[in-house]
Amino acid sequence: MRDENCIFCKIAGGCIPSNTLYEDENFLVILDIAPAAKGHAIAIAKSHFRDLLQAEPSALAAALPAVARVADAMKKALSCDGINILQNNGEAAGQSVFHLHFHIIPRRQGDGLTIPWKTLSYEDGEAEALASAIRSELEK
Amino acid sequence: MRDENCIFCKIAGGCIPSNTLYEDENFLVILDIAPAAKGHAIAIAKSHFRDLLQAEPSALAAALPAVARVADAMKKALSCDGINILQNNGEAAGQSVFHLHFHIIPRRQGDGLTIPWKTLSYEDGEAEALASAIRSELEK
Repeated sequence: MRDENCIFCKIAGGCIPSNTLYEDENFLVILDIAPAAKGHAIAIAKSHFRDLLQAEPSALAAALPAVARVADAMKKALSCDGINILQNNGEAAGQSVFHLHFHIIPRRQGDGLTIPWKTLSYEDGEAEALASAIRSELEK
Repeated sequence: MRDENCIFCKIAGGCIPSNTLYEDENFLVILDIAPAAKGHAIAIAKSHFRDLLQAEPSALAAALPAVARVADAMKKALSCDGINILQNNGEAAGQSVFHLHFHIIPRRQGDGLTIPWKTLSYEDGEAEALASAIRSELEK
């Protein structure tokens, strides 16, 4: 089920291009275009649920296996020190797109990152190179 | 499988008391004793996994159904505006207990909370009252 006015439904449906890292029946994982750290990914539910509290059991069960798989590949591809998984429910919690998604954020010792974060931007080709490195780990 | 030196294994095994909110085959959800916001809970895996990357598929599939159920009850019991779900992997990501757990953090509009957070403390009886309110919602 999709919501035609939802940007994440459009991304999940392939109508808006993204740097895709991983895809399965329930989730699409892409690079966030406003990353907290370079390589920051988001796992987007393929069906439209507003948040975790509205999600169907099948999406709840499927989310973390996909997130963990990408997190493992991200850790290897980026040689980062740690990873945060963050999922926001409601504007008061920092949710800005009201479609269930999980942030997968690579961390480095002493990076000083706080959540909410100041967004970074990618140089030309940088996002594509990072996405490719993570996809390569997933294919191993 | 438990690690005898792990404090979360001791809590999950009932050897250290906690304000329990919810329990199922795979997860125990309790109030965090050093909360980011009052009512902040953590879902602790009953088996010992260092983090998300080390967790077994059954734990990955079982985590969010438990977390979402408690988050829903928390939102109703505390009348909060939003909820963050946070899971840290590695010291660089803010993980301090190396046993898989998920933070469930109630949020209020304008609370100014950032992650990592400055911990709060409970007055006598306050944690028990909050735990009881959330359990009551779970029993409805």
